[in-house]
Amino acid sequence: MIETDILIIGAGPTGLFAVFEAGLLKLRCHIIDGLPQPGGQLTELYPKKPIFDIPGYPSVGAAELIDNLMEQIKQFEPGFTLNEVAENIEKLEDGTFIVTTNKGTQHHAKAVAIAGGLGSFEPRKPVIEGLNFYEDKGVEYFVKNPEQFRGKNIVISGGGDSALDWSIFLSDVAKSVTLVHRRNEFRGALDSVEKVQELKHQGKINLITPAEVTEIHGNEHVEAVTLSFNGGSSSQTIKTDYFIPLFGLTPKLGPIANWGLEIEKNAIKVNNALDYQTNIEGIYAIGDINTYPGKLKLILCGFHEATLMCQSVYNRINPGKKYVLKYTTVSGIDGFDGTRKEAEKAVVKAID
Amino acid sequence: MIETDILIIGAGPTGLFAVFEAGLLKLRCHIIDGLPQPGGQLTELYPKKPIFDIPGYPSVGAAELIDNLMEQIKQFEPGFTLNEVAENIEKLEDGTFIVTTNKGTQHHAKAVAIAGGLGSFEPRKPVIEGLNFYEDKGVEYFVKNPEQFRGKNIVISGGGDSALDWSIFLSDVAKSVTLVHRRNEFRGALDSVEKVQELKHQGKINLITPAEVTEIHGNEHVEAVTLSFNGGSSSQTIKTDYFIPLFGLTPKLGPIANWGLEIEKNAIKVNNALDYQTNIEGIYAIGDINTYPGKLKLILCGFHEATLMCQSVYNRINPGKKYVLKYTTVSGIDGFDGTRKEAEKAVVKAID
Repeated sequence: MIETDILIIGAGPTGLFAVFEAGLLKLRCHIIDGLPQPGGQLTELYPKKPIFDIPGYPSVGAAELIDNLMEQIKQFEPGFTLNEVAENIEKLEDGTFIVTTNKGTQHHAKAVAIAGGLGSFEPRKPVIEGLNFYEDKGVEYFVKNPEQFRGKNIVISGGGDSALDWSIFLSDVAKSVTLVHRRNEFRGALDSVEKVQELKHQGKINLITPAEVTEIHGNEHVEAVTLSFNGGSSSQTIKTDYFIPLFGLTPKLGPIANWGLEIEKNAIKVNNALDYQTNIEGIYAIGDINTYPGKLKLILCGFHEATLMCQSVYNRINPGKKYVLKYTTVSGIDGFDGTRKEAEKAVVKAID
Repeated sequence: MIETDILIIGAGPTGLFAVFEAGLLKLRCHIIDGLPQPGGQLTELYPKKPIFDIPGYPSVGAAELIDNLMEQIKQFEPGFTLNEVAENIEKLEDGTFIVTTNKGTQHHAKAVAIAGGLGSFEPRKPVIEGLNFYEDKGVEYFVKNPEQFRGKNIVISGGGDSALDWSIFLSDVAKSVTLVHRRNEFRGALDSVEKVQELKHQGKINLITPAEVTEIHGNEHVEAVTLSFNGGSSSQTIKTDYFIPLFGLTPKLGPIANWGLEIEKNAIKVNNALDYQTNIEGIYAIGDINTYPGKLKLILCGFHEATLMCQSVYNRINPGKKYVLKYTTVSGIDGFDGTRKEAEKAVVKAID
C-alpha cells in the first residue's frame, strides 16, 4: 500500500505543479498516470510544439515546460505510479481514501485531486479480427519502453507524427521496422517526414504504402501480419514480432466516471467559489477536467486551481492550524530532500 | 483623452499579464502606474531577489520575470501612463469609464481592472520642517529619472538597499553624492554594502554617519541641508542641489478607496465565483488587491484572475458573440503589431 497525503490522478502540468504547492505546506504527493511518462498531453501529443500563454514565457516548448516543472517539484520528492489507470476508489470511515489501479496497485491518501486533463488517453484501434487477443502479446498501442523492441521485427501502422517519430526512433533499436500507411501521403512535421524518407533510402525503414494491416497471425504471440492493397485486391503476409498501430488517441473520462462525482459534459463539477472540491468531500478536480461557471481550459488556470486545492487540503488535514501560502521570496523553500532555497539575506554591516 | 478597451491600474505582474490575455481576445489595454517603471513591487522593492513559485520556473529573478512579461505582451502594444496615480473615476451612461490621474491625464475605457497589488507605494517621509514645500523643488522620494541628477550635488538619506543602490548608481552621474544614515550599520545585500565601502575609499561617495538631515534651506529650490549629530549636540550644513530621503515605501490603497468599491481589510471585495468583478459592474479587481473566500496573495493566482477578467470583459463588450480563450498551441497568436506566432504546421507529403 502506497501512503501519501494527496493522491493526484494525472501527471500533466496541473498535477505536477500541485506537488510544489503541497510541498510548501509540508504535504507529500503521489501521482498516478496511465501514460508511461509524466507530462500528459504535452509530452504525449505535442512535445515539440511551443506554448505561448504560460505567464512569463513568451514561448516555451511543451516538453520543456514539463522538464521545468519536474525540476521545480524535485525537492518535494513526488512518487509516481505510471502506466496504470486509477480504477476504484473507496472512502474510509476516517475520511481517507484507497485508490486502486487497473493493475491492482493500492494507494492510501488523505485527499484525492483529479487532474486528469481531457481524460485518460485511449488508443484508436483498427478493426482487425482477433485484435484484442493479441494485446500485450505483440500488439502495442503505446511505446512504453523502447528496449522491449530491441532486436525484434516490428510493423508500425499509421500516417501521423507518432507513426513517423517512433519509426525513426525504433529504426536504431529494432532488427527491422516496417511502416504501413493506407495513403502515400504522411501528415507530420516536415523534418520527421524527411527523416523517414532518408531512412527508407538507407534501407533502415521498410515503407509500404498504400496498404492496410488486415490480419494478425500467431499462436500465443504475434508472428506475422497480412497487408492488403487496393481494398483487398492483393495481399502480402510478412513475419513480425510486434504490431504497433498508432492511429491517435482519444481522451476518455474512463473509470472515474463511475466514482459518484457530478459530471457535466465529460467534466467534473466543482465548487469553484472556494477550493475546486467536488460533490464528494476530500475529492478535488483541478485543471481541464473540471467545470464551473466561467471555467477556461488553460494550463495557467490549472496552476491556480492546484494551489487553492492544496491550501484547502492543508486546512482539512490540520483543522484550526493557520498556515497560508505566501510569497516564496520572503519565506524561502524547505525541500523534503533537506535542501533549502531562499533569497540572499540582507547583511547589517558598518562601513568604515 | 487616451482611449482603450481595458484600463489597467497597476503595472505589476498581474496587470502586465492581463494585456496578453486581452490581446488574444483582440482587446487593447492601457496601464496606469504611480511608479516610474513597470513591475510594481518586483522591480521597485526586490528586483534581484529570486521567486520560487512561478509555475515552470524553479527560480526566476523578480526583475527577470517582469522583463519576460514585457516581452510576452510587446506584440499587443500596451500603452502606459507612468509616474501618475489614478485619482478619479466616472462611469458614463453608456457603461464606459473615464479615469483621471493626479496629473490630470484622462483615460476613457470600456472596462477598468484594478491590479494595484498591495496599493500604491507612498514614501515614508522624514519629519523635517518645510519638507512639503521643497517637494518637486529638490526633494525627491523616488529616483524617477537618474539623468535629472547629472552634474548635480545630491544628498541621499537612508540605510537600506534603496539608499545603498542609488548612491552607487548616482556616484557615476552626479557631481557629488553624500550618503547620510543615522546609524553606522547599513542593512542590505552584501555586495551593495561592500561596493559603497569601496566607493567611499575612492572618494566617490561622501559617507556621513551617524547623522540625520534635520533642516532644509533654499528660496525656491533646495540649496543646502543641515545634518545633526548625536541628537543635535552638533551640526553641519552642506550645500546640495537635491535631497533624496529613501526611508522605504508603505503601500496605501490611495484614492481608489473613495471609488465606492466594497473594501474589506484594505482589499477590494470581488465575486470570485465568476470573473473577479467588484460591486460596480465593469470594474474588476485582480491580484493581491482583491479578496474573496479562499483568496491567496500569490502572483500565479493573479495570472488566473487576470485571464478570467479578460474573458468577462470580452463577453460584456461583445454580447452574444462566442469566443473563448483556448490553447495557444492550437490557435497561435496574432499581435497587434502584425506579427503572427504559431506552432509549426504539419505537412502532408508523400514519401518516395
